[in-house]
Amino acid sequence: MPKPGAVLLYIRILLDDTGSTLGRRFALFIQALILLSLLAFSVETLPNLSETTRQALWLVELLTVAVFTVEYLLRVLTAERPLRFIFSFYGLVDLLAILPFYLSSGLDTRTVRILRMLRLIRIFKLLRYQRAVAHYIRAFRLVREELAIFTLVSAMLLFLSAVGIYYFEHEAQPEVFASVFHSLWWAVATLTTVGYGDIYPVTAGGRIFTFFVLTVGLGVVAVPTGLVAAALAQARKSDGESGDQG
Amino acid sequence: MPKPGAVLLYIRILLDDTGSTLGRRFALFIQALILLSLLAFSVETLPNLSETTRQALWLVELLTVAVFTVEYLLRVLTAERPLRFIFSFYGLVDLLAILPFYLSSGLDTRTVRILRMLRLIRIFKLLRYQRAVAHYIRAFRLVREELAIFTLVSAMLLFLSAVGIYYFEHEAQPEVFASVFHSLWWAVATLTTVGYGDIYPVTAGGRIFTFFVLTVGLGVVAVPTGLVAAALAQARKSDGESGDQG
Amino acid sequence: MPKPGAVLLYIRILLDDTGSTLGRRFALFIQALILLSLLAFSVETLPNLSETTRQALWLVELLTVAVFTVEYLLRVLTAERPLRFIFSFYGLVDLLAILPFYLSSGLDTRTVRILRMLRLIRIFKLLRYQRAVAHYIRAFRLVREELAIFTLVSAMLLFLSAVGIYYFEHEAQPEVFASVFHSLWWAVATLTTVGYGDIYPVTAGGRIFTFFVLTVGLGVVAVPTGLVAAALAQARKSDGESGDQG
Amino acid sequence: MPKPGAVLLYIRILLDDTGSTLGRRFALFIQALILLSLLAFSVETLPNLSETTRQALWLVELLTVAVFTVEYLLRVLTAERPLRFIFSFYGLVDLLAILPFYLSSGLDTRTVRILRMLRLIRIFKLLRYQRAVAHYIRAFRLVREELAIFTLVSAMLLFLSAVGIYYFEHEAQPEVFASVFHSLWWAVATLTTVGYGDIYPVTAGGRIFTFFVLTVGLGVVAVPTGLVAAALAQARKSDGESGDQG
Repeated sequence: MPKPGAVLLYIRILLDDTGSTLGRRFALFIQALILLSLLAFSVETLPNLSETTRQALWLVELLTVAVFTVEYLLRVLTAERPLRFIFSFYGLVDLLAILPFYLSSGLDTRTVRILRMLRLIRIFKLLRYQRAVAHYIRAFRLVREELAIFTLVSAMLLFLSAVGIYYFEHEAQPEVFASVFHSLWWAVATLTTVGYGDIYPVTAGGRIFTFFVLTVGLGVVAVPTGLVAAALAQARKSDGESGDQG
Repeated sequence: MPKPGAVLLYIRILLDDTGSTLGRRFALFIQALILLSLLAFSVETLPNLSETTRQALWLVELLTVAVFTVEYLLRVLTAERPLRFIFSFYGLVDLLAILPFYLSSGLDTRTVRILRMLRLIRIFKLLRYQRAVAHYIRAFRLVREELAIFTLVSAMLLFLSAVGIYYFEHEAQPEVFASVFHSLWWAVATLTTVGYGDIYPVTAGGRIFTFFVLTVGLGVVAVPTGLVAAALAQARKSDGESGDQG
Repeated sequence: MPKPGAVLLYIRILLDDTGSTLGRRFALFIQALILLSLLAFSVETLPNLSETTRQALWLVELLTVAVFTVEYLLRVLTAERPLRFIFSFYGLVDLLAILPFYLSSGLDTRTVRILRMLRLIRIFKLLRYQRAVAHYIRAFRLVREELAIFTLVSAMLLFLSAVGIYYFEHEAQPEVFASVFHSLWWAVATLTTVGYGDIYPVTAGGRIFTFFVLTVGLGVVAVPTGLVAAALAQARKSDGESGDQG
Repeated sequence: MPKPGAVLLYIRILLDDTGSTLGRRFALFIQALILLSLLAFSVETLPNLSETTRQALWLVELLTVAVFTVEYLLRVLTAERPLRFIFSFYGLVDLLAILPFYLSSGLDTRTVRILRMLRLIRIFKLLRYQRAVAHYIRAFRLVREELAIFTLVSAMLLFLSAVGIYYFEHEAQPEVFASVFHSLWWAVATLTTVGYGDIYPVTAGGRIFTFFVLTVGLGVVAVPTGLVAAALAQARKSDGESGDQG
């Protein structure tokens, strides 16, 4: 019989040491279980499911929550400072993934279940992508101020476009461009170039206005791309200069 | 009772010193009022508003204009050189935000009211983003000439595409591609990749033409993105070299 | 009465010296005339034009061709080496702008008239944008080989997508995805993200296939943007290093 | 009569030495044949083909396979190490292009025939674009880790968007947003900005959700562009520094 200390160490390796074969396999198993859980969640929304399918999905749910609960309890029990783990980001995410199951009695817990997706973030621990993540974070910190300005200018542009098209199209299509809020939906669909086709200008004035809005708007949309490109290049470069070049 | 000079100083801090707690709060209050005013403006365009809502919106309008008027008068009275303030950019914007209310008698002032949005620009004063704004301005100055060429080439491409598709599609869809102007609307919706779906080619020739137009067109659209990216990187870099690195 | 040599010099300044006030004004006048001619061309395609409008458009056409003819003859007569001018790029463009008018007798010359647009290229002479144009040319020369590879890969991707979606959707929508050529039209509209909405997958297989095609396809589309951005930055930089920084 | 050694050398030049005029012409002939074969494949899918056309397409197929078979046998026979060629990438591709023709007896071999497209890859040998290809490969290796993170974040975003819109729109449009899988199709069409128009939100909540999804989503889409741009610039630069600048 192994000593309690050895068991504790063994469990810690299982749960946290993704460098070891055992820890790596356990982490992959948990990730697979999360994906299975999310798939089950999606399948449940399909219309006209047979009773057999419903029961299978319920079993998957039971299994998932059981494993997640055991894992959570082990993490709390083997943590050096249990309270600190419970209130850490990963601790709260792990709790959120199982709590709704126990709290609900007849309630629709489906919405809360997608929070389990947050657990997928742990994959970053598994994949040793710290340096790449650090590049992203540094890049976004570099362009924080520029992005804030860009967001404000975009919001103004959206609002101005909506008001403009409202005046051009309201009379010709009173049902479609019924208010500035309806026009805002047009502005979103147009300036992102999604263009569903449920709402579009038909008057000559509205179309010319759309042309000018798009000319300016696409220029504005090009800005964050340029910002992020420049910042990532800078983050990567300063990383390379300060040491370990890839 | 405080001296008149102290009152003047107090008001100036309130209106302009966004570094102080008082000035900061007042600026935020004004910004919130502008947003409220724009929201009221949007709600007014909704169809089938009840009488109660209309009266509430009217009250919001009265309140907004009242506060803006007091603020404007204070700014003029406490300015060191009142005339200079009145004809400054911010002075004119502030006047435009209230003048229509007083001038109109029965007229539809809604169009003019959205000019109040311009007052939101003051937020840049609040948020100390001068350096980021300077980056943008420098970047756009760097690529001014290239952007002018790009605009000309794009305009030519739009016109050529419109004429081309007109010859391919006019016979097959005389109602949709009725003239070069109708085709221009197609060219705008297509080359910006919005693609509403209200107008599109159906002949084999028109579709092959669309393919070539898009191949060239998307290459052209990629240019300003590249331009702005390169210019922003350069602006940021030369800023960093000349001193205060972020 | 001035000497013939002085007249010749005077005409040369008028036609070519865009640095002088006179030459500049004449160049702007010709550019305005080209735009007027293109506008008239577009208006002519409008349905249900009145007889008066038709006559006005005919007058514009007569006037335009008359001025262009006089200008062309003056350019030939005052050129130091007339033959060299006639067979130069600008010489041929100028000839193409007027020749169709004289050759046609009852033929539809509208198609050829848009060649006048080529004359707009002279605007670059007017606007002293040589350096920016040089940046573009150098950038495109730098990425010539990469763009060729990109074009080949894109063409393969388009064809593969078309064949793939044909097998997924042909049975479900035999009228819409009637052949690989119909599917190619879908591939063009989808991979450029235009998405008119006249042709789209409805089967689960076709939609999953579309997802993968778009994931790969948008990555491919991102490549030329990156290429041009990098090349423009390099062209601008090497220009700055070799001398006259903006 | 030439010696066998000379014939062997002659054939090797024909097949592989694209630097020689003969080898170049032969390579171009094969490429043209591949394109012809792919065109025939596409034409075959057209509905209502006449019997004459079918027979012509069959002849093209016979001719193509005959030439490819001879070429393949010559390559195997003249290779210094035949087995190595047979199991090389190009060897397998060449085999795949002809094998289905001989194996099938009444089966539909059309699907397999598009594998011939892979033979087009040989064009890179012809066009001496090794350095540009090397740039691409180095750039993608540089950003491998960042792209992996980006892919994971995009997949999460897609799933979250689908679940979100399902809750907003399912009640209002139970047929269109029938399940999370249907919503995933919406998420794909929207976040890639294709926007076919077959599925879109109609409730205020769903539209506001779409706005936020697009705001975040387009930012995410901008990331790989920036990544590739930065990496290509770096790959090109380090290539230039280590020697032969273009």
